[in-house]
Amino acid sequence: MKFEYENSFEVKHKIQERKIAILPIGAIEAHGPHLPLSTDNILAERLSEKLAEKVHAFVLPTLPYGQVWSLRDFPGSINISNESLISVLVDIGTSLYKQGFRIWAIVNGHLGNQPALKDAARVLYDQFQDFKVFYFFYPGMNAILKDVRETQSVHSTYFHACEIETSIMLYLAEEHTNMDKAICDIPDIPESADFTPTPWQKFTNTAVLGDAILATKEKGEKIVETAIEKMAAMLRSAKDEIA
Amino acid sequence: MKFEYENSFEVKHKIQERKIAILPIGAIEAHGPHLPLSTDNILAERLSEKLAEKVHAFVLPTLPYGQVWSLRDFPGSINISNESLISVLVDIGTSLYKQGFRIWAIVNGHLGNQPALKDAARVLYDQFQDFKVFYFFYPGMNAILKDVRETQSVHSTYFHACEIETSIMLYLAEEHTNMDKAICDIPDIPESADFTPTPWQKFTNTAVLGDAILATKEKGEKIVETAIEKMAAMLRSAKDEIA
Amino acid sequence: MKFEYENSFEVKHKIQERKIAILPIGAIEAHGPHLPLSTDNILAERLSEKLAEKVHAFVLPTLPYGQVWSLRDFPGSINISNESLISVLVDIGTSLYKQGFRIWAIVNGHLGNQPALKDAARVLYDQFQDFKVFYFFYPGMNAILKDVRETQSVHSTYFHACEIETSIMLYLAEEHTNMDKAICDIPDIPESADFTPTPWQKFTNTAVLGDAILATKEKGEKIVETAIEKMAAMLRSAKDEIA
Amino acid sequence: MKFEYENSFEVKHKIQERKIAILPIGAIEAHGPHLPLSTDNILAERLSEKLAEKVHAFVLPTLPYGQVWSLRDFPGSINISNESLISVLVDIGTSLYKQGFRIWAIVNGHLGNQPALKDAARVLYDQFQDFKVFYFFYPGMNAILKDVRETQSVHSTYFHACEIETSIMLYLAEEHTNMDKAICDIPDIPESADFTPTPWQKFTNTAVLGDAILATKEKGEKIVETAIEKMAAMLRSAKDEIA
Amino acid sequence: MKFEYENSFEVKHKIQERKIAILPIGAIEAHGPHLPLSTDNILAERLSEKLAEKVHAFVLPTLPYGQVWSLRDFPGSINISNESLISVLVDIGTSLYKQGFRIWAIVNGHLGNQPALKDAARVLYDQFQDFKVFYFFYPGMNAILKDVRETQSVHSTYFHACEIETSIMLYLAEEHTNMDKAICDIPDIPESADFTPTPWQKFTNTAVLGDAILATKEKGEKIVETAIEKMAAMLRSAKDEIA
Amino acid sequence: MKFEYENSFEVKHKIQERKIAILPIGAIEAHGPHLPLSTDNILAERLSEKLAEKVHAFVLPTLPYGQVWSLRDFPGSINISNESLISVLVDIGTSLYKQGFRIWAIVNGHLGNQPALKDAARVLYDQFQDFKVFYFFYPGMNAILKDVRETQSVHSTYFHACEIETSIMLYLAEEHTNMDKAICDIPDIPESADFTPTPWQKFTNTAVLGDAILATKEKGEKIVETAIEKMAAMLRSAKDEIA
Repeated sequence: MKFEYENSFEVKHKIQERKIAILPIGAIEAHGPHLPLSTDNILAERLSEKLAEKVHAFVLPTLPYGQVWSLRDFPGSINISNESLISVLVDIGTSLYKQGFRIWAIVNGHLGNQPALKDAARVLYDQFQDFKVFYFFYPGMNAILKDVRETQSVHSTYFHACEIETSIMLYLAEEHTNMDKAICDIPDIPESADFTPTPWQKFTNTAVLGDAILATKEKGEKIVETAIEKMAAMLRSAKDEIA
Repeated sequence: MKFEYENSFEVKHKIQERKIAILPIGAIEAHGPHLPLSTDNILAERLSEKLAEKVHAFVLPTLPYGQVWSLRDFPGSINISNESLISVLVDIGTSLYKQGFRIWAIVNGHLGNQPALKDAARVLYDQFQDFKVFYFFYPGMNAILKDVRETQSVHSTYFHACEIETSIMLYLAEEHTNMDKAICDIPDIPESADFTPTPWQKFTNTAVLGDAILATKEKGEKIVETAIEKMAAMLRSAKDEIA
Repeated sequence: MKFEYENSFEVKHKIQERKIAILPIGAIEAHGPHLPLSTDNILAERLSEKLAEKVHAFVLPTLPYGQVWSLRDFPGSINISNESLISVLVDIGTSLYKQGFRIWAIVNGHLGNQPALKDAARVLYDQFQDFKVFYFFYPGMNAILKDVRETQSVHSTYFHACEIETSIMLYLAEEHTNMDKAICDIPDIPESADFTPTPWQKFTNTAVLGDAILATKEKGEKIVETAIEKMAAMLRSAKDEIA
Repeated sequence: MKFEYENSFEVKHKIQERKIAILPIGAIEAHGPHLPLSTDNILAERLSEKLAEKVHAFVLPTLPYGQVWSLRDFPGSINISNESLISVLVDIGTSLYKQGFRIWAIVNGHLGNQPALKDAARVLYDQFQDFKVFYFFYPGMNAILKDVRETQSVHSTYFHACEIETSIMLYLAEEHTNMDKAICDIPDIPESADFTPTPWQKFTNTAVLGDAILATKEKGEKIVETAIEKMAAMLRSAKDEIA
Repeated sequence: MKFEYENSFEVKHKIQERKIAILPIGAIEAHGPHLPLSTDNILAERLSEKLAEKVHAFVLPTLPYGQVWSLRDFPGSINISNESLISVLVDIGTSLYKQGFRIWAIVNGHLGNQPALKDAARVLYDQFQDFKVFYFFYPGMNAILKDVRETQSVHSTYFHACEIETSIMLYLAEEHTNMDKAICDIPDIPESADFTPTPWQKFTNTAVLGDAILATKEKGEKIVETAIEKMAAMLRSAKDEIA
Repeated sequence: MKFEYENSFEVKHKIQERKIAILPIGAIEAHGPHLPLSTDNILAERLSEKLAEKVHAFVLPTLPYGQVWSLRDFPGSINISNESLISVLVDIGTSLYKQGFRIWAIVNGHLGNQPALKDAARVLYDQFQDFKVFYFFYPGMNAILKDVRETQSVHSTYFHACEIETSIMLYLAEEHTNMDKAICDIPDIPESADFTPTPWQKFTNTAVLGDAILATKEKGEKIVETAIEKMAAMLRSAKDEIA
């Protein structure tokens, strides 16, 4: 399942059979006191592994650096520009296509990457007509969150190191989650943050956007299993279209 | 030691104390029947860990994609352009500098990356006067190889999946080395390969450039320990210059 | 109020006094049978004029070309890449700053432009510390839509040539709205459209995403007046910060 | 005739019938005390409308920002780089071609845009063999000027806010021309201005290069009608070549 | 005088004293049957040498490749893009400035290079405030041509391999001019050639734009000596401004 | 043999017959007290002429500017970036291919250019399948040096203005070599210079890396004649493959 441990003599026919490559991508980014800098990478990786099992795909090595503009000034964050990210992803996609893959699922653990992933997928869409590229970020989550949340969301589209993300970590990577240090920090995000460049230090000192203390493995499970089901369904459907 | 498992609340003072970040970089590339596609990443990672212990540095998450022009047509290879690689590395370096690192050691397991690493380091050199960037590829190896080799080198500057690289794998990652499948394949590399674009399928079907069967852990140890010593010495000396 | 009709001899002190420039930006894009290709430009322009009156700002000439990837294959659409858009906007912003403006409100009538606007604003953010750039797309709309809608939204983030956009046109530019031709066409947008490049011809022949027949001037008024209030408030607050 | 007010349902066959798209392009630029910043846009727009009538073409929305290096430091000027301009124009041209247009006439009101227009046209020339792109700047003017001028030209290739340009404005857009404020300011342009970067503040405080007081509608008419005739003839001839 | 034959030990103080570097630039381009492909380089070089003597400047090695779009399809032409040319020139200019030069005269023998030279000079203008860059193309020529020409010009701004250019060659490089092969070929250049991309094979088979047979050394001398005088005067004046 | 002195009327069939173009490329770079700044250009040019005679090829005009990062701060050096160099070379190569050449030998006199040459050749390799591009830097030299050297090499891959390069100059361009000024200066190059950006002023004041006094014409002859033989053999073999 892990592409990196395959060898060149045997991999060719496996690619032709499986057809699907999954790339975990996340970021190195501040995630409060209770979650590691690599949280988004860990999540992307674990999601990818679960997904790969469901659809008999290869998991590529994680691309561990992402676009971290909003939190770039927080200790530990490493930021890659959209341009760099798009460029690397188009290169990887081009190689995957030439190697025989026909479906590429980028499983993204960091919302800030999403615009670059979309752009890279569009470039590849114009280059290779029979190459299907997905850029997944927890499909189906919005519906689930209504059930799961005990606290109100602080923002309509993003969540970070909070009840939600910590729950997902508890389910997927409990060993990297330190609930003893979990905090509740509910920032007041100004409406203008959606309409003018606003680094997050303007409204939070912790990078925790909510109440991480309320996180549970069960909440995480619901979100993750829904996302996995939805991703698997889309990949299966894409594979059916090829065959 | 692993930067990715640090958290944002505690990492700041550790960066200021350690000052050195180590980035393992390799490639996904054909390495014959006995070594995995990720050989160069595994080597870079293990070298980085050993080096980090010696110099009390942070190891960053591995950048697992590299410039693989020569073997890009072999099954399993994934190729990134020099431009993409330079762009990502300059971004990472810029973040590291802003985070407080003053020495960045890129530990490279794949020779094809070396020109891009050098270019990225030069860009950063002009941007940040007090930021020292290293791009290491087995320093001191040439001298050691004279002792270690039982077979003649097939090329004056590169080696691949052969007596040498397999030995290094045996020492650093025996669990990823399958000596049962090791082969001897000594290609006749035309002199023109150094002076005109020459994908390796022109002279090898296996991507093994020599006799992998002769690989031993001891040979690998000599090469690796020399390289580690030399890298550690350069980093210590750079750190002394800062203080 | 219209910057374009000012002359060079008198404009300097007016810039220093007003400090705010408003740029309408939209697109040339298919908008069904009842709305013109320039719908998004017209909306951006009328919104800008109303806003300018409230905050005593200059309105710049409309930038009438936008990023129209999703509908680029529909008759009449003209598509500009993100790269081109970012490049032009950074140039314009740089000139505005040098001319003495300190607040730049980009009033956007076309959702597809939003990522490029955000990127351009971030580039300028790093270049000019005392220059505030806004990229407005109907702030406050989500809350209003819950009251206003008679039909369900076909998508969680976008709307197009439907009950909503047609209502806004009726309020802002009734003379360009042909309700006799308005249609109801409720597409079934596949979930995958959010996660893989999906030109809209995959799910609509009309480019109308809903029931345009239900559009009313009153619905439009609520949305527009809310947006205007919110934009004006943010600009006033930004101007207060300068003074 | 105005492309922007067409709708997507009806525009397709009209494009196929008309085949010609006209883009007015100008600039926001200082034009002395008597002419507005948007002079070049207004001129390009009015010229385009007259031309469109003659050749039964569509007029696209005006691109109102141009390359204004020489006057960028004058109050009110907004400057776009050649690179940005070329990039946007190549994108627009590509869309026009895909939409079915086969002739694109860029009617330029600002001489500073001419090199970028030429470059963009050459890029499209190499991309689409059956796409004819024109970049018009008052064809035939040089011959007419000899008759029309009462004052000597201050420069062999450019004129600005002077007897000539003001005359054209009087003929095409009298409502935007304030002859009460017209001045005579004849600068001494050093010969070196043609051979080394020379912002115009080096030789003028007004941006008026000549005697605007001598402007008349009749002079403008001669220049404009000649230009229109010549442009129409070239477009008709290009259309004949297609048929 | 030739910079290339200086050595590093002695050149520093000479740069500081002379302050002026002259770069000859031309092209490899079809020039009819009687002139060599390198005509524009030869002319630029000889002009540069004469100029250098007058103003005590260094002559840099000739940049022998230029932008040859119009004649790129003629046998022997080699074409460089504007982008490449600008990039190289900005690099060279940056080095010259860092080496201590404060005036850079680019002596251009090929009109097609002029837009790129102007753009490169503007980039350097923004980077180095006390660096004066000239891009000379036969200053003063237009006035002289009225006296010198026996034939009418076929175009208002360019001349090529004709009475004029051949005369200049006879004066500057008679040994590379083969008058036995000189021809008269007066093309009918369509007016549209100024307004739409028009490779010259559309109107000439020879690349000779006029009557080369009428060329004389005396005509060349007038043009050249005027140009030299004018260039020298501008450089002296620029040098005076520095001192 | 010199392409630049050909004329457009006769060159076409000669290109088709000869098929090989040779481009000398070097640099303007500090070469100690006894060698001129243009040493690398002179060497590339003389090598090219000798090679052209052997293989009946055209010699193109020398590209006299190169990538001189390491010595850019020494008096007289002019530095071009890798990007500029690649861009120009890809343009030239594209023209050569379109003109009918099928083999392009870039004869390089300056090691710093080698990475850019390799990259340019790879770009052309992907664009034109039947175009063979060589980037020669003294092939066969390493073997010869063992015989020739009286002094030890100061570095495993580069040599500069020393016993070796001065010998080559004595053989190829004695008139530009001033042995009276030749010096012996054996620097101690730190091992880190291979792994971190290290401008040469860190270890030398002279730019002479060895004992130039020991240079002899005979040593130069051996190196040059070997290189010529090897280059000629590769070109002949490439020409055979075409035929």
